[in-house]
Amino acid sequence: MHTLLILSRAARDYHALIESAHLSDLAITSTTDPAAAVANAASFDLAFGEPALLRQVMPALTAVRWVQSTWAGVEPLLDPACRRDYILTNARGVFGGQMSEYVFAYLLARERKIFDKQASQAAGRWDAAPPTRLRGKQLGLLGVGTIGAALARTAKHFGMRVKGYTRVSEDSADVDEYFHGPLADVAAAFASDLDYLVSVMPGTAATRHLVGRALLRALPPRAVFLNPGRGGVVDEAALAAALQDGRLAGAVLDVFETEPLPADHAFWRMPNVVITSHTAALSAPSDIAPIFIDNYRRLLRGERLQYCVDFERGY
Amino acid sequence: MHTLLILSRAARDYHALIESAHLSDLAITSTTDPAAAVANAASFDLAFGEPALLRQVMPALTAVRWVQSTWAGVEPLLDPACRRDYILTNARGVFGGQMSEYVFAYLLARERKIFDKQASQAAGRWDAAPPTRLRGKQLGLLGVGTIGAALARTAKHFGMRVKGYTRVSEDSADVDEYFHGPLADVAAAFASDLDYLVSVMPGTAATRHLVGRALLRALPPRAVFLNPGRGGVVDEAALAAALQDGRLAGAVLDVFETEPLPADHAFWRMPNVVITSHTAALSAPSDIAPIFIDNYRRLLRGERLQYCVDFERGY
Repeated sequence: MHTLLILSRAARDYHALIESAHLSDLAITSTTDPAAAVANAASFDLAFGEPALLRQVMPALTAVRWVQSTWAGVEPLLDPACRRDYILTNARGVFGGQMSEYVFAYLLARERKIFDKQASQAAGRWDAAPPTRLRGKQLGLLGVGTIGAALARTAKHFGMRVKGYTRVSEDSADVDEYFHGPLADVAAAFASDLDYLVSVMPGTAATRHLVGRALLRALPPRAVFLNPGRGGVVDEAALAAALQDGRLAGAVLDVFETEPLPADHAFWRMPNVVITSHTAALSAPSDIAPIFIDNYRRLLRGERLQYCVDFERGY
Repeated sequence: MHTLLILSRAARDYHALIESAHLSDLAITSTTDPAAAVANAASFDLAFGEPALLRQVMPALTAVRWVQSTWAGVEPLLDPACRRDYILTNARGVFGGQMSEYVFAYLLARERKIFDKQASQAAGRWDAAPPTRLRGKQLGLLGVGTIGAALARTAKHFGMRVKGYTRVSEDSADVDEYFHGPLADVAAAFASDLDYLVSVMPGTAATRHLVGRALLRALPPRAVFLNPGRGGVVDEAALAAALQDGRLAGAVLDVFETEPLPADHAFWRMPNVVITSHTAALSAPSDIAPIFIDNYRRLLRGERLQYCVDFERGY
């Protein structure tokens, strides 16, 4: 018999979804409250939930052997002070569609001048200013995992050219040109002709402040930076300076080093910054529960679980 | 020797593009001014330009045998008072990409709540309200020619279901379900489960006010109507009433019965109407000149021209 702790803000939804799969040999306990979870913590061999909540009970989950994260990003559980003697799996393959809708909503909004048109309408003005087009523009991707591959696919649908920066992988055929190696070495070749740069990098020690002075200086002044990935990847002071000096046309930011973004942060009042308050891709229980269910069946069959996180690499 | 009149607001661009094709046996005259064109009008056997300008010189173009329109819509030349003893060809196959960028800019803007997010940002408010998704939503197309087919292709890319209303054709495999016949007969089956309805119908006698009370009553209150096609297809009074009564969630309107939209029109001040001032798809000389060049070569070879307009049908 396996004993599962569900610790999630959507605990009730996840409990119902997992229960309805009628998994064999599984007893489920669910709660939204880390304090409540600590009580019988030593009895659970499996855990499922948000990394930020699970982090609080990890020291007490002494018998846990597998943790399934409901998020793609597992930073809280990568804390070197936290134990690593268990299998950690994250959520993958379910965010590409949402990310694509987010990124292309803002790319198309910019090309079609929809905020300008809205202002003209408010002034009662017939505004025949011609739009520009996505077709033929260049998109740069920082990171080409399943999310980056989904963005590349949509970019090709709209006739864009796609450049991808990754550590080693070249998995997506929708990327026209790949770049690897230290970013300082390839920044000019990767970034100097981009119209849009999108970061979908995981938040790890290796990616910290990757979007910093070197990369921002390599971008042309017409470029717009979008970050629906992880806040720690961006050097916010360097980004704010580039935007204020006109070395970058704009930024669409979903994630930040500190969330919610502090009220006195300069980004709030910059006219060329769009803030979307960490809503780019949400973990829908109906998308995430099947990942746990599939992995649990693999566990019962003694197979390798999907989406295992490498604690050292950080994703 | 053929003699061509180019009568267009982009006369200079078109003259240069057509001249650079080194077409044989062709003398080119170009102007932006219909009055200037009338002077030697009887000498031209070919004409090229905007239908609204060409309409003014048609009576004087007594020797013309072929007119190539720079637009898709040729309404001004369909005037029954105007001669029809020549071949009229229009522009097709070049607007699908632009239309797709236009339509999906506004569909994604709605799903991602980008105007709400903008208002929250202006108020300095971290707005974590979850977006909705295009995936799984239903798109209805009024008209499935080359433009409708391009919209259907993008809709399928984003995981939407597509219903198409056409006179007879079923050319796009990206349409999941086709509807034909009098709209009054099929309105309920076609429209009652749509999230978005897009009109890309040509403006003809048969399509006049097709988007009227019957179709608008068949739409569910959650639906949004987009019109990047032709203004005459819409009964504007019926549309305004449906929007004001909450029987329709919103409208994104590019074209109108009278353009520019009169300053006192109710649409300007309706909070659920977006006005984009006839900019959805523009005739770019670099897209349109090749259509003339290809058709001219067909003419020299004695072949049938592409994109011939049926004066009776109206497209």
